[in-house]
Parts: sequence; structure tokens; C-alpha cells
Amino acid sequence: MIYLDNAATTFPKPDSVYEALDNANRNLAFNSGRGSYKAARGCTKLIDETKKLLIKLVHGQGKESVVFTPSITIALNEILNGIEFTKGENIYLSPYEHNAIARTVHRICKITGTKLIEIPIKEDTLEVDLDTLKYQFSINRPKCICCTAISNVTGYVLPVKEVFEVAKQYKAITVLDTAQALGLIEIDLRNIKADFVAFAGHKALYGPLGIGGFIDVNEIPLKEFIVGGTGSDSLNLEMPHSSPNKYEAASSNMVAIAGLKAALDETIRLEGSLQEKELLEYLITELGNIDKVILYLPPEDRRIGMVSFNVLGYKSEDIGMILDQDFDIAVRTGYHCAPFIHKYLKDTDFSGVVRVGLGRFSTKENLDELISAIQELCE
Amino acid sequence: MIYLDNAATTFPKPDSVYEALDNANRNLAFNSGRGSYKAARGCTKLIDETKKLLIKLVHGQGKESVVFTPSITIALNEILNGIEFTKGENIYLSPYEHNAIARTVHRICKITGTKLIEIPIKEDTLEVDLDTLKYQFSINRPKCICCTAISNVTGYVLPVKEVFEVAKQYKAITVLDTAQALGLIEIDLRNIKADFVAFAGHKALYGPLGIGGFIDVNEIPLKEFIVGGTGSDSLNLEMPHSSPNKYEAASSNMVAIAGLKAALDETIRLEGSLQEKELLEYLITELGNIDKVILYLPPEDRRIGMVSFNVLGYKSEDIGMILDQDFDIAVRTGYHCAPFIHKYLKDTDFSGVVRVGLGRFSTKENLDELISAIQELCE
Repeated sequence: MIYLDNAATTFPKPDSVYEALDNANRNLAFNSGRGSYKAARGCTKLIDETKKLLIKLVHGQGKESVVFTPSITIALNEILNGIEFTKGENIYLSPYEHNAIARTVHRICKITGTKLIEIPIKEDTLEVDLDTLKYQFSINRPKCICCTAISNVTGYVLPVKEVFEVAKQYKAITVLDTAQALGLIEIDLRNIKADFVAFAGHKALYGPLGIGGFIDVNEIPLKEFIVGGTGSDSLNLEMPHSSPNKYEAASSNMVAIAGLKAALDETIRLEGSLQEKELLEYLITELGNIDKVILYLPPEDRRIGMVSFNVLGYKSEDIGMILDQDFDIAVRTGYHCAPFIHKYLKDTDFSGVVRVGLGRFSTKENLDELISAIQELCE
Repeated sequence: MIYLDNAATTFPKPDSVYEALDNANRNLAFNSGRGSYKAARGCTKLIDETKKLLIKLVHGQGKESVVFTPSITIALNEILNGIEFTKGENIYLSPYEHNAIARTVHRICKITGTKLIEIPIKEDTLEVDLDTLKYQFSINRPKCICCTAISNVTGYVLPVKEVFEVAKQYKAITVLDTAQALGLIEIDLRNIKADFVAFAGHKALYGPLGIGGFIDVNEIPLKEFIVGGTGSDSLNLEMPHSSPNKYEAASSNMVAIAGLKAALDETIRLEGSLQEKELLEYLITELGNIDKVILYLPPEDRRIGMVSFNVLGYKSEDIGMILDQDFDIAVRTGYHCAPFIHKYLKDTDFSGVVRVGLGRFSTKENLDELISAIQELCE
């Protein structure tokens, strides 16, 4: 199989991650912080070390705490449902948001009467329209703003630094979704005024499934949402009051955390020496030379990791099926859990787009096979 | 290390589980149901097979659906927050409930004004007092009742069949917590009138961390709670309308599911041939012979899996620390995330209890070392 669905889950992982996972399953799968024995304390130490690596990766200043959750979806549910919203307030989302944010905010708006407002984008380039956004903020003050660092549909790198800069003039709570970004591009808290940075372990960080979370930058208190045992203050029916314990109900997934640590060690060792950008531009050029191919491209200096396209005369899922059955190439097709952006991409006739998600282990040969398959299809 | 904290997380797991996990990490860690390629479809098939095994284990009748969540805590949060509660309604909990239920219900009561009522237990044996419960129901009608099948503090096997039978006369929604039970004792849906059966993968089922869920027996509709991408109907801001998809936001943890499947295969193969009961009675007899030991014992025919005790003159955590440091024996001490039962156990002078959690791989030799350590301590 030629695997080009890295935007969903990166594959393969570095060998060190597989080794760490197997070792943790066999030797470290205990309940951290809940037992009074050596193995349990070893778990607590490993959790702390892993959190420190994450803070280092985003250039944290030492005040941040890291909350581990089983997935970034749960992290985003905890953050957004933790904010006190009331009728008449506004929550802004970029149209590039994933359903982990879009559906969560939609549910909150239904319950509280808060208004969901889309961050405006330019009709031609589909880039964030900062000037119009500033105007919108002045009319409808933002209580909270959610922005993904990279679109999971087009690979567009959003100007989150600029967006949050403006939002902070209104003291908005800023939520950054780095599902596609952390490990792939620089996320630097010294420049990005994010209050909450949600991350996924199993994507660009090359960690395992089962671990995500958020970096709680400014300790803005969140209401309890998911609650349960914390192994501490057990007779108290309230959750602990401070981050991260307040947001970490249930046993930690030690195995996934051990895998994430190995993945972070490797990501930090590589120091951002990425081949994905070069491969991406090669793929874009070659696909662009095929007549029937429609590309959905962000500007060259603001794209990374993936490319989405369609082929005239085919539904996106048909292309996926042909690539799978005739060429053993795995891509993802459809709407990619992103509900808003497709009205701008105007791709509904194709039932979405074909997305090629590149990864750390993708090769030029992989892409040549894809390109030749698409050429054959277009003949 | 002599590991006797199996009530927290069973350890070790069968070798077949470790092998399945490593294999899945290396060959199967894809996004099920979200890709249109063979590997993704293979994931969907494995999920379906695993769910079928769970239904088989509880003697399901075919109408049940299985919802996978990252933990039983999240399953219980989804179930309980999904029920429409209003002020004036009553939710009953046994005093044996874990904070995954107790804190969740406490939060719901704070928000909705629903009343939390404890299921009465007899002062002497600490068994559920069915007659008083029937009377309570007649005065304060139950909207919902939550009951654990086995106490995670004393190993008491609760009469859930009888409790739910009575609750169903009032059409109460019945929620069964099988965290300690599924895989250890028979949970038979033909006899137990449960609407929701929550389960943990990493305890008595001998699966990995990172997987739990609930069996949705009667498809009572739950409100959306945790929402996000489902890989289906992506343009719709509502979650899918039917179980299990409605409750399964985010990528499935394929690796943990593959591990759970191997664990279920093994559990079903063993056909309940348990050695835990025999070992438990041996341990109880031996500890009972030590003068300074206080045992917290359910009746002999209603206990399994663990025993809790204290030693006069010691806090429970001191015993834990001595067993760890001087004898390399891992037990758990304290309140075990169960907030209500300790007022009946009257163990607060000891700061909770020392819990010995037996497992499938515990041996008589392990217990002899523990017994001799406690004897030494009491000299």
C-alpha cells in the first residue's frame, strides 16, 4: 500500500515509537498517581517529562500546564464547554474548522443562545480577510475565537498570529487547533497569543492513537465538563480546582503517553527538517499539468502537508476507490469532517475533494505512482 | 514486583494481547470508516467483530449496539449527561459508586436541580437493603438508577438484577457499571434489566488502556454531549442520529480495539474458569488470623476479586509504602475514588483502606509473600 492519508493519521511512525509502545504495554501500563508503589510513581514521572517536551516544542514560558485527554476532540469539547457563554455573546470560527470544533460550538450555541460567526475569507484566494474581520469584531465583539493552524482540507496555513492579535484587543478567549500543525510547522507561544492550544498525538507529532490534549497557557478557569476519578481528594464530589488535574478524569493512558514521548523526542531531534514542503510542490506541479485535474490550492507560501484535488467527470469517492483497487494507493475523499469550507471550494458536485496527505515517510516514488495513476485515469 | 493492584488495571495481560497491540500499531493504526481504502475497511471490520464479541459475552439478544469510547469514565459521562433530567426528578446511586458516576451525577444535579439519593444499605452487612429501597422508590420515584456490579473498594457483588427489577417497575433508566465485573463475573442481559452497560477494557477484561464504552441495550435516545467528527455526513452540524455513531466522535482507537479483541477472545476461551475466588478466600482466611488486621468483608457468597483491610496503628498509605519499599509488593491505598462508602466502612481514621486486587495471573505464592509481610509488620 502507498499510504497518502497522513492528514488523518500519520503512518508509519518512527520505530522508536513502536518500541516505546510495546515496552510500555509490557512494563508500564499502570495507574499513575493512584498507587503508592514504584511502578505507579514511574508513570507519573514519565507523564511529567512528556508534558515538559510539549511545552518545549511550543516555546512555553513555564507558566503553561499541559492537559492530557484521550483525543484532541475531547480536549476541544472540554475547552469549549468549559467557557461560560451566554446569549448575545459571539464565538468566531474560521470556515476551515473541523467538526471537533464546529459541532461542539454548534451544540453550545443551541444550548446557550451564543452566536456562531464565521471568520471572513477572501473569495478569490480563500485567505483570511483580516480587514473585514477587524470590522466584524468592532460590530460583534468576540467572546471567543477558534482557529485551526492548518486546514485539514487544503493544507492552508492560517494567519493565527495576526488573527489572535486582533482578537486579544477585545480580550477574546483564543483557542488554537493544532491537529494538523504541531510537529509539522512551528507553533511558537512567544508570538501566538493563544489561551488554549489543542493538539493531537497521532497526526503530525507521529505519536500513537489514544492521546491528545491541550496546553493551558493562561489558566483561564473552565467549568467542569467531563468529570470522574482523579485519584486525589476522592471524598470530594467536585473535581480538583486547578489545571491540569481538573481536566484529567480517569486513568491516564500511560502506554499512549510513552509512545508520544518517543515521538516528541524524535520530532525535536529532527528540528523541523521537513521534506513535506518540497514533495508537496512537486506533486502540485505534476498534478497541475494534467488537464482534467482541478486543484484547490492555498498561496504557495501558505500551504503544507497535503493537496486536495478533483478530476473532471468523477466524484471524489470514485477516484479514491479506483486508486485503492487498481493502484493500492490510500487517499481520503469526501468532506473531511470540515463543514463550512466546501461552500467556498464549490466542490459539492464532486461530493468533496480527494485529499493527498503527505507524511515524514512519503517518497517521490510514492507520488510518481499517484501521478501516473491519475494520468492513466484521465486518458 | 508482586503486583496486587489489579482492581485499578489488570497486569500483566495475556501475551496474545501484547502481540495484537504491537501488530495493530505497526499494521492497523488507520482511521476506520473514514477512508475509502482497504486498510480503513479492515479497521471497520475489526471494530464490528470486537463489538460482536462483547454482545456475546453479555448474552445480548441482537438488538444491542456497542459504543466505543476512550474510557468507561467517558462512557458514563456520555450516558448520564445524555439523559434529560429536570428539577424534582430523582437519580439513585448505590453508595458503592465510583467518582466516574458520583461526580458526574453531582455535576448534573448542580446544573439541573435533580436530586441524588443513595440506595440504602444495611448497617451491619453493608448489603443493599432492597425492602427500604422499594419504600424509597414509592416515596421518591426514580428517574434513573446507577449501580456498579462489583464495588471497587470491597469487592462486594451488588444484587443488580434485583435492584433493576424493582427500578423497572417505575420505568427508571438503569445504568450498570461493570468496570470491575465484566470478564470476572457473569453479566447476563437476559436476567439484568439494564438499559446501559458501561465497561472498561483495561480491567477484568484484560484489554489495554484507552478503550471502554457502553452497551446500548434499548436505544433510549441520549442528548449529544461529546461531539466531533464522525467521518460521515460531515456537512451536518448535528451528530448522526442513531447509536452507536451518535456517541462515537473522533477517530476510533484501532490499536486499543485490536488489543481488546484479543483479550475478549481469551476471556471467552477461558469460560469463566476463575482462580480469583479461591485465592481470595485463602487470603481472607490468612489475613483474618492476624490480630491487628481489620478486614472489610462482604458476605462470602457476594465477594470477588479483591479484599480491603487496615492494620491497627497504621494509616492505609503507610502500609502501602512499607509493602512497596520493603517488600516490593504493589497494592493500592486510600479512598479509591469512591466517595460514599467510606462513611459506612468507618475507615477515615486510617485514611481509607489497603486494597489487594487479585488478577488472573496472581498466585498463592504472591499472597504468601503479602501475608508474611503483614505478619512481620504486626509483630
